[in-house]
Amino acid sequence: MSPSRYAYLGPEGTFTEAALRTLPEAATRELVPMVSVPTALDAVRNGEAAAALVPIENSVEGGVTATLDELATGAPLMIYREVLLQIAFALLVRPGTRLADIKTVTGHPVAQPQVRNWLAQHLPDALWESSASNADGARLVQEGRYDAAFAGEFAAATYGLEALYTDIHDAQNAQTRFVLAGRPARPAARTGADRTSFVVWLRDNHPGALLELLQEFASRGVNLMRIESRPTGEGMGQYCFSIDCEGHITDRRVGEALMGLKRTCPKVRFLGSYPQAGVDAGVPPRPGTSDDDFVAAADWLTRCQDGRA
Amino acid sequence: MSPSRYAYLGPEGTFTEAALRTLPEAATRELVPMVSVPTALDAVRNGEAAAALVPIENSVEGGVTATLDELATGAPLMIYREVLLQIAFALLVRPGTRLADIKTVTGHPVAQPQVRNWLAQHLPDALWESSASNADGARLVQEGRYDAAFAGEFAAATYGLEALYTDIHDAQNAQTRFVLAGRPARPAARTGADRTSFVVWLRDNHPGALLELLQEFASRGVNLMRIESRPTGEGMGQYCFSIDCEGHITDRRVGEALMGLKRTCPKVRFLGSYPQAGVDAGVPPRPGTSDDDFVAAADWLTRCQDGRA
Amino acid sequence: MSPSRYAYLGPEGTFTEAALRTLPEAATRELVPMVSVPTALDAVRNGEAAAALVPIENSVEGGVTATLDELATGAPLMIYREVLLQIAFALLVRPGTRLADIKTVTGHPVAQPQVRNWLAQHLPDALWESSASNADGARLVQEGRYDAAFAGEFAAATYGLEALYTDIHDAQNAQTRFVLAGRPARPAARTGADRTSFVVWLRDNHPGALLELLQEFASRGVNLMRIESRPTGEGMGQYCFSIDCEGHITDRRVGEALMGLKRTCPKVRFLGSYPQAGVDAGVPPRPGTSDDDFVAAADWLTRCQDGRA
Amino acid sequence: MSPSRYAYLGPEGTFTEAALRTLPEAATRELVPMVSVPTALDAVRNGEAAAALVPIENSVEGGVTATLDELATGAPLMIYREVLLQIAFALLVRPGTRLADIKTVTGHPVAQPQVRNWLAQHLPDALWESSASNADGARLVQEGRYDAAFAGEFAAATYGLEALYTDIHDAQNAQTRFVLAGRPARPAARTGADRTSFVVWLRDNHPGALLELLQEFASRGVNLMRIESRPTGEGMGQYCFSIDCEGHITDRRVGEALMGLKRTCPKVRFLGSYPQAGVDAGVPPRPGTSDDDFVAAADWLTRCQDGRA
Repeated sequence: MSPSRYAYLGPEGTFTEAALRTLPEAATRELVPMVSVPTALDAVRNGEAAAALVPIENSVEGGVTATLDELATGAPLMIYREVLLQIAFALLVRPGTRLADIKTVTGHPVAQPQVRNWLAQHLPDALWESSASNADGARLVQEGRYDAAFAGEFAAATYGLEALYTDIHDAQNAQTRFVLAGRPARPAARTGADRTSFVVWLRDNHPGALLELLQEFASRGVNLMRIESRPTGEGMGQYCFSIDCEGHITDRRVGEALMGLKRTCPKVRFLGSYPQAGVDAGVPPRPGTSDDDFVAAADWLTRCQDGRA
Repeated sequence: MSPSRYAYLGPEGTFTEAALRTLPEAATRELVPMVSVPTALDAVRNGEAAAALVPIENSVEGGVTATLDELATGAPLMIYREVLLQIAFALLVRPGTRLADIKTVTGHPVAQPQVRNWLAQHLPDALWESSASNADGARLVQEGRYDAAFAGEFAAATYGLEALYTDIHDAQNAQTRFVLAGRPARPAARTGADRTSFVVWLRDNHPGALLELLQEFASRGVNLMRIESRPTGEGMGQYCFSIDCEGHITDRRVGEALMGLKRTCPKVRFLGSYPQAGVDAGVPPRPGTSDDDFVAAADWLTRCQDGRA
Repeated sequence: MSPSRYAYLGPEGTFTEAALRTLPEAATRELVPMVSVPTALDAVRNGEAAAALVPIENSVEGGVTATLDELATGAPLMIYREVLLQIAFALLVRPGTRLADIKTVTGHPVAQPQVRNWLAQHLPDALWESSASNADGARLVQEGRYDAAFAGEFAAATYGLEALYTDIHDAQNAQTRFVLAGRPARPAARTGADRTSFVVWLRDNHPGALLELLQEFASRGVNLMRIESRPTGEGMGQYCFSIDCEGHITDRRVGEALMGLKRTCPKVRFLGSYPQAGVDAGVPPRPGTSDDDFVAAADWLTRCQDGRA
Repeated sequence: MSPSRYAYLGPEGTFTEAALRTLPEAATRELVPMVSVPTALDAVRNGEAAAALVPIENSVEGGVTATLDELATGAPLMIYREVLLQIAFALLVRPGTRLADIKTVTGHPVAQPQVRNWLAQHLPDALWESSASNADGARLVQEGRYDAAFAGEFAAATYGLEALYTDIHDAQNAQTRFVLAGRPARPAARTGADRTSFVVWLRDNHPGALLELLQEFASRGVNLMRIESRPTGEGMGQYCFSIDCEGHITDRRVGEALMGLKRTCPKVRFLGSYPQAGVDAGVPPRPGTSDDDFVAAADWLTRCQDGRA
């Protein structure tokens, strides 16, 4: 194992690298770009890296299915951190290129819907072709294969390009959420503004199963933050659910809800509890669902069982 | 305190006394008839009796409100046993009385609806007047105030009467359930076919509160056996709920449900866990709700919290 | 049929009579006291009376089971009005009787718990014996059988007694709710502050059935005002539920909830929609549950079905 | 409008084309390949095509987000048919190429995870590069840029290639579901084995909103077949839900559930009711939820409102 190495979804110059560099410890780690999410996570699984940063969700494009599916299956991994990055593109060109010169543009397929309106307005006649990543697109511009690439402004230096336009994003508040995954160990410490991730498989052909799953959380005042269905691979109509809830696994209300799933669902995979990025203080728990309330109720139950209530 | 004394709703010759005598330990106790349910229960509260047997529910007439309300308020009491008694009336008369001689009949008000059809058929012209108890009615027949009384056949001897008819009951399966209440102590041992009783007060003006209460049990696979609303005395439309559920307070699913109530409701009063009368084996718990399931889920949670899942 | 006759739970001088006299139309009706709730309601069923006023609920003692059960079974009846009466007792004595002279007191069994504290304080040594009604107690005082009776102050004149004390009631806000029942016809007109009553039987041995029943109302924003379980007479543990909800059967949200019960429960008996006594304006419906919302949703559905959405 | 033209996700030789050709009417239509899902659907919106067939879900890869998002936003479209296609790949090569000759392979990014295991076993050293579509990959093999492409066997003829291997698919039961979308009109006729699609937006920051949404269906016995969260584009954590349920919009239980959503959610978009592909007979409705049950309940409600119940 190399505790000094952090893998990330490469190549160099991606938003993932930019996100990784926002983590203080990144300064003292060797940052290793990997060609795909599975490759980055496998580097953690096989000990080549201590952790890997991969995108998990974009506020415009939705869940990153490769990440969701890799975390749900295979050797277990756990999430210890999340990074939230505002996504704005720069239009990178070889030095000297003017807007009127641009006949072809490239970028990651996920970038396209985020710049579609901008393109229609500024480069209505340019031909779009997808590249394997935004950084790859920049490299292809460097090599002369395309005239311009949408990528992070920070990628310009790496590929000897210049940013003709910056801060391009059709949607307000386009953000990508990245997670730092490592091998299973004790979860990140509770901060009071935490997120807990897990994957749950429901019983076959049980129509109310999803409803009961949600009840486990609702009845304990635990808010869900994200829920995504993913196919289990066992045929059309068979899904598991990748879910984030508010709170930490050491919060009683969260722990009891998770135990409820564990008891009633065929399979649950815990993916970690970690601080919510950019949130200083969590929402106070609903009356009756704080740790103190749980402790008081447990005390009362013991007194009842002992005849001292 | 007199551990040798058991109070019961008297006078002598009531169904309550008959029910009490079905308990093996009654043979070694001094059985003391009391004039009312509150008096019987107060005898326990103030130490004059070790326990009191009182009716709590009749399959025809419903809940015995005096018992429900006495258990819900005042110094706490706990239920340790229940007795189920088939209710059939005898028509008791002074020796020599024939059916044609009967112009007036008496009995407890609760008896009347249970013999109404029989009366309409056999004594359509007889005048009914209520007495304070079935046994009291028998006494009044003895004293000559009425011609006949509906009471338990066992009351005949006590009051020097004879049973002109027996096994009178309009409804099939007329049963009364009695409970043996004592001062709070460790609940009766778990048998696997148990009943747990409690009273719960809901938050004011919270329309979904009853629904949430039921959810605490449903989500843990705990069946309700009885639910009765009772006024809290704080004004029209203010109720508490007297509830019996299947299972024992030491069953994890029951304990967790009760803790859920304790956390989210302003007040819960535990009234005891005790063997279901006449039931040998309980219903097996729904998948995912056995004690083993709870223990396995708690183990899993600990492993997750320790990074060993 | 005698549209001019209103039956009520007698005898003369009961709180029921006092409640009946608060109805404007009572002035033009012949008011007929009946010896019991079943007798009063049967008088309506067999056409001897146009309607009957009977107590249905007391804020201290709870539901009046005779009324609940009579309305739930037998030939159908419907509720058209409710009357809410503040209950306060007078201590009625023969003229000249002083407090110190009182050795025996009487009253209806339901009265006793409502004056228990007052008795303990003012007449700790007096012997209580129950009478068939408060008015009957007054008559027995008139006849000299008891020294004092608890009854409504209005009963004094009828029985030639005087009120030694008035406004006696242990509980604050002791109220009794009475209902005016008639043969089934079009419900009372909607006022916007209405109450709808019904009885519903659940499927046997279906643990979540009560939960599903409540869901039908909760999901449509209909608040429950009263819910009482009553034995069905088919054996211990078999209950039906007597329920009042807010709103009128012509309110869409109420109608749809009732249809939900009708579809999924073995039996539902509608008991009427009628103005809430003492309430001028109903609670505004929850967003999405007004008649306008239902109409708009139905229009939208039609447009979808027609391809015009 | 050109009723004779059907657009589809091209280019020629894609699985989408194969799926489209399973529809009988395809034989009499001009089939027009489009470069992307949005382009295909826009061709319908602007009248260039009568309908468009696009993939919506793959049993291994999950939902096709471009399709989900295009149907959820922009000018309304409706689904009239679905096609289910077993997905198996052929390895297409230029005639004469042997397995040992293959150094580079290509295919659509979605194909890769479906052939990953096969590749690892048969071509562990081959380099994978993604192409814009499986058919595009075939074209690039034809042009000599790659040695082999994964595509449908039917694509071989179009591009002058031959299938070295066929029936390649890592997962059992890999299927893709395609939908035929047109401009809004009357939904497809009810068959009794139907699927209804819609998109619903929940109220902001209302934690139980998803639970309430599911309740609308569960309480009426309507099973969900698919549920996918999609970002609304209004910021991280803001989702709408793309849902399929069993049944047809003209089924009362489905219609009432949809009206429930319409009343309580800020926005619902109906996407069509259409026959379930490959299903002859639907699941019989749960007791109490058939059209007959709804009609009977409505009749009962009318009788209650008219005083004839």
